[in-house]
Amino acid sequence: MSSTFIGRSLRLSIFGQSHSEAIGMTLDGLPAGIPVDRDALQVFLNRRAPGRAKWSTSRREEDKPEFLCGLKDDCTCGAPLTAVIRNTNIRSADYSALKVLPRPGHADYTAEQKYGGYQDYSGGGHFSGRLTAPLCIAGGILLQELDRHGITVDARICSVAGIRDESPFLSPVKDKAFPVSDDEIGERMQQAIEEARTEGDSVGGVVECVIRGLPCGIGDPLFDGLENQIARLIFAVPAVKGIEFGAGFSSAEMRGSENNDPFCVRNGKVETVTNHCGGILGGISNGMPVLFRAAFKPTPSIAKPQQTVNLRTMEEETLCITGRHDPCIVPRAVPVVEAAAAVAVYDLILGEQLWN
Amino acid sequence: MSSTFIGRSLRLSIFGQSHSEAIGMTLDGLPAGIPVDRDALQVFLNRRAPGRAKWSTSRREEDKPEFLCGLKDDCTCGAPLTAVIRNTNIRSADYSALKVLPRPGHADYTAEQKYGGYQDYSGGGHFSGRLTAPLCIAGGILLQELDRHGITVDARICSVAGIRDESPFLSPVKDKAFPVSDDEIGERMQQAIEEARTEGDSVGGVVECVIRGLPCGIGDPLFDGLENQIARLIFAVPAVKGIEFGAGFSSAEMRGSENNDPFCVRNGKVETVTNHCGGILGGISNGMPVLFRAAFKPTPSIAKPQQTVNLRTMEEETLCITGRHDPCIVPRAVPVVEAAAAVAVYDLILGEQLWN
Amino acid sequence: MSSTFIGRSLRLSIFGQSHSEAIGMTLDGLPAGIPVDRDALQVFLNRRAPGRAKWSTSRREEDKPEFLCGLKDDCTCGAPLTAVIRNTNIRSADYSALKVLPRPGHADYTAEQKYGGYQDYSGGGHFSGRLTAPLCIAGGILLQELDRHGITVDARICSVAGIRDESPFLSPVKDKAFPVSDDEIGERMQQAIEEARTEGDSVGGVVECVIRGLPCGIGDPLFDGLENQIARLIFAVPAVKGIEFGAGFSSAEMRGSENNDPFCVRNGKVETVTNHCGGILGGISNGMPVLFRAAFKPTPSIAKPQQTVNLRTMEEETLCITGRHDPCIVPRAVPVVEAAAAVAVYDLILGEQLWN
Amino acid sequence: MSSTFIGRSLRLSIFGQSHSEAIGMTLDGLPAGIPVDRDALQVFLNRRAPGRAKWSTSRREEDKPEFLCGLKDDCTCGAPLTAVIRNTNIRSADYSALKVLPRPGHADYTAEQKYGGYQDYSGGGHFSGRLTAPLCIAGGILLQELDRHGITVDARICSVAGIRDESPFLSPVKDKAFPVSDDEIGERMQQAIEEARTEGDSVGGVVECVIRGLPCGIGDPLFDGLENQIARLIFAVPAVKGIEFGAGFSSAEMRGSENNDPFCVRNGKVETVTNHCGGILGGISNGMPVLFRAAFKPTPSIAKPQQTVNLRTMEEETLCITGRHDPCIVPRAVPVVEAAAAVAVYDLILGEQLWN
Repeated sequence: MSSTFIGRSLRLSIFGQSHSEAIGMTLDGLPAGIPVDRDALQVFLNRRAPGRAKWSTSRREEDKPEFLCGLKDDCTCGAPLTAVIRNTNIRSADYSALKVLPRPGHADYTAEQKYGGYQDYSGGGHFSGRLTAPLCIAGGILLQELDRHGITVDARICSVAGIRDESPFLSPVKDKAFPVSDDEIGERMQQAIEEARTEGDSVGGVVECVIRGLPCGIGDPLFDGLENQIARLIFAVPAVKGIEFGAGFSSAEMRGSENNDPFCVRNGKVETVTNHCGGILGGISNGMPVLFRAAFKPTPSIAKPQQTVNLRTMEEETLCITGRHDPCIVPRAVPVVEAAAAVAVYDLILGEQLWN
Repeated sequence: MSSTFIGRSLRLSIFGQSHSEAIGMTLDGLPAGIPVDRDALQVFLNRRAPGRAKWSTSRREEDKPEFLCGLKDDCTCGAPLTAVIRNTNIRSADYSALKVLPRPGHADYTAEQKYGGYQDYSGGGHFSGRLTAPLCIAGGILLQELDRHGITVDARICSVAGIRDESPFLSPVKDKAFPVSDDEIGERMQQAIEEARTEGDSVGGVVECVIRGLPCGIGDPLFDGLENQIARLIFAVPAVKGIEFGAGFSSAEMRGSENNDPFCVRNGKVETVTNHCGGILGGISNGMPVLFRAAFKPTPSIAKPQQTVNLRTMEEETLCITGRHDPCIVPRAVPVVEAAAAVAVYDLILGEQLWN
Repeated sequence: MSSTFIGRSLRLSIFGQSHSEAIGMTLDGLPAGIPVDRDALQVFLNRRAPGRAKWSTSRREEDKPEFLCGLKDDCTCGAPLTAVIRNTNIRSADYSALKVLPRPGHADYTAEQKYGGYQDYSGGGHFSGRLTAPLCIAGGILLQELDRHGITVDARICSVAGIRDESPFLSPVKDKAFPVSDDEIGERMQQAIEEARTEGDSVGGVVECVIRGLPCGIGDPLFDGLENQIARLIFAVPAVKGIEFGAGFSSAEMRGSENNDPFCVRNGKVETVTNHCGGILGGISNGMPVLFRAAFKPTPSIAKPQQTVNLRTMEEETLCITGRHDPCIVPRAVPVVEAAAAVAVYDLILGEQLWN
Repeated sequence: MSSTFIGRSLRLSIFGQSHSEAIGMTLDGLPAGIPVDRDALQVFLNRRAPGRAKWSTSRREEDKPEFLCGLKDDCTCGAPLTAVIRNTNIRSADYSALKVLPRPGHADYTAEQKYGGYQDYSGGGHFSGRLTAPLCIAGGILLQELDRHGITVDARICSVAGIRDESPFLSPVKDKAFPVSDDEIGERMQQAIEEARTEGDSVGGVVECVIRGLPCGIGDPLFDGLENQIARLIFAVPAVKGIEFGAGFSSAEMRGSENNDPFCVRNGKVETVTNHCGGILGGISNGMPVLFRAAFKPTPSIAKPQQTVNLRTMEEETLCITGRHDPCIVPRAVPVVEAAAAVAVYDLILGEQLWN
């Protein structure tokens, strides 16, 4: 198991299980002197925290980080920064039956095979979506620092249950309870979520993220390009099954003459007329907004009966999952995507030391 | 610039520019005693090599690797394996004008900004699609070794220019000149490529890859999952703008009850009835075929006039690219995707040391 | 700052400052199912803990690890293992004057230059010897696992203040309060320490470590050999200024005919008659005991007045360090060396997956 | 086998066997625009090349690097830099008997065990001292770049066969055929080498290296300190069995009041009166010269009969090594130590991006 992101400059170690004493993260490689605004960080973490709306699990937990080290007077001191969140609202009983009855769409089965019965299956263990909370602590701190340098990272919901918001992503929507650009479409998305919930089912969706203000020259060809790095971090978020940059899969249907972004001069700067490449050419930022979309599958935990296999008897059985689960994790995934993008981008920027 | 893939067990260093003395690769971390069938490798490399068909550049070069070290009696000896391909058919004159006139859709502009005029712009330099040849040497060797252990990696074209082959991917098509399952649809795809070519334009497409025989338990949660690792390698292939696993972006439109793959028992083994997860749960293989699709943008080098900016005068100018270019790189990308997938998967398997 | 050891299989992240809320470590990459004997671990940690003898600082703290995650029923569960130790007995006032008056032999000056005034200078911050406690948690767990496979790691004091114990290192001395083979010489060493202490001074020494039971074949040539790996970890221990393997610096004075270890057959196995190479040939273990020695400089914190520079006024000043300091850290360093060696060796063994 | 140095910014891949087609190296991560003076590099490589003196093997080979890629107009272009040296003067017959008769002090036995008979034993294979040539290509280029920034790396012989040159290391001796400060003592060292040679024996020695001009602040505490990094690279040089920084093992015999280096002000700058710490405090450079010594064992290949074990019959046998071998590799190791130090230091500097 490797839960340590080894970036160009940063090492981010994420630890914890859904029902262990605590979850947390260590961020190593941060320069000294970066301020951490704890209140702003808490506001960011609350966007991910459960229990805020109907589409969210009723497990109510304050994702309140305790900083163990790495800060002095609320600035980074050069030493690794570690923060933990205690797990308090634990109902392990919910999960006891799942040991031999792996839930379809979950990692129960693969974990059982890989860890030979030693894994902590309770609450999803280390595979739980709860592990995105420490990722948000790291990302939340880096988002603050990026913002200080004029780099903003904004995500939004662009589709849920096949209902798409195709309006241009012009301004941030992160302050909205349901972060979508077109609120009417957002209303329909929420209805679809609510319908799924009442039917004991779940829905998925797509989150779009745009990074503005990134200077030209970040990233590299081949293995450490912006796309490689962002993809590597985004696939660390549970339930992500696809990622595309710029026009992405649509590019594959265009002609070169349509898809190529012509260069132009705007305000004395080289820009491109369109941005089908999503701000990335040859793995390197070109100064235009970096844009990507991540596809989230529907929450695998649903109330509807499902077929599984009893691993002890090797008989097929019907499984009914009880417990608290989001009928759609997409709204809570929006800040997580921002956090993952922030880690990806900040790590590459730090490697370039543009701000020295 | 980081052109070294640092895997769990392997280090793959890819080097060379389109018009340097040679291109090549070093594969470090291979166990001793792996046989290399040079003839079979050449057959594999020929699938990628240019000049074989109308959709391919007329630059004719045998991608014939010279092994400098790492082999003894055609078996790996435990030391790093290095192979190079000499660059022989070079027409640098074609590129001299592009120094100040960056080609839309290419890395000319970002490389100029990043490397401050020192980059080797000739022929695309280190950003050239030609650098996929060394990746294919590495992947070709590993594909042989995977095959010896019953693991097969097969890719095919599943769409070109918006024309989709939706037939199930049941059997390999790698021996076909145009590697598609439904040859009639393949015929239409080739027509679309030919039309684009005669119009001085290009088209893109989607390559699908399936890995069969992979045992359950390969990969990890969070940063080193199968999806993270495959994505990281696939985005090293120039022109890739998206990747999805299993049902991918379609998952995002399904309900959980549809998308979840019910577990069942087949021949005494746990399998899943459907495979929307693409053989991966929690970043770990579940024993079903691993399936992903990569979106390739249309070749950016087109004969049609395009708008660019003269970096010296900062005036907008019209650019006409001459020289030899593929109107569609998708057919030649098929073995490249197999190679990238082989590196990704073999590296993780080696880390598990399943075959000790 | 990089406080994450990235091994072949393990990632060990060490975090904390001398006076932060807590110090701790995350060990990622451990197989599932490794038992952790907490009592035995505490016994091991107590060997390093302060306040046990006259040569040790009077800061009294139980190095009692709290396990936050990674264990289930006292076995590793495959997820990262995190343990922390709360900092309780803190006397920050002791250190306030040192901000502008760097202590000779300490990292105060280099940290001030590197972190530009943001470092947590209190108690030595992240540079404190206290950070060897988390290293001992990691090492202590791995020592237990190595022992289960017949591999033992034993260190001893082989010199203090120039007084040498040259008796052969035949049996472990870890149970001794002063871990030396020849107790009479140990008595003299302790007198030398006590003399230094009463004079407000300190002494250094050499720790020797032997790893028995390591099979042949562990390690690699060039950058990841046993010597490189052990050295990399041992130099993470504060105050280490040298390391040598086998005959080490004495080898340099021998002839080849003396220094070469002739191969012989003992009990049907290939061994060597002598062990000047310290069990390592070409970076790889040869099946004989692996043997190395680490030189520790005298504790830089001494009561005697010392010359330093006031970084504010840039005047030379006399500094008198008060506070609690070991007149000799060598006795407490013995388990730390064992811990570092265990991490080094276990990581390479895991990479070979000898025990699968 | 891991022959790739993964530094903070650089990846250095070294490949080749003593008798393979070629040996070479790829240096990835170099900034674009670094000039390479090929003549000066050749002068540097000639210092390591064999066949120049009586103490050197009579294998005569020009270590003439062929640059395959990474340069444009003799400047780095941002892409990986690969250079190879063809192996031309190969006498494999010399080694055929050694397959079953491992040479004492060599890696023959450990390689046989590790690679199960697949290793390329001829000429020492990948374990050969010849692999220091590619290290010198990398180091030679970096030494030029360090020099441009006022950082010099100078090594010298400070002992051979127990004969010590204890004169202070004030000025470079690299232009001398026998690089020692005190030529009279150097004369005695050469006599000792010659005596050993005529007796079919060999001698070892110690190389000292000083790095001047390194600014304060390079390196980090714990695992990526200057000591860890230099040690990791120096132990990649065959025959090194020990390393010490500053006063090193002598520190262990001093008192703190002697060993601590008092801070002082010289020309308005903070310096230290003595330099027992070898320019490193807490893993970080303090602005004083960085100083270390590496112990080289005597060449294991000697003409004198030695006892070994026939691995086929498991009988003890007497081995007589013929072929061409240095009676002392220390003189040729001097530039190798400089090269390794240059890689270590440059990599850390690049990570700090001090020169941006």
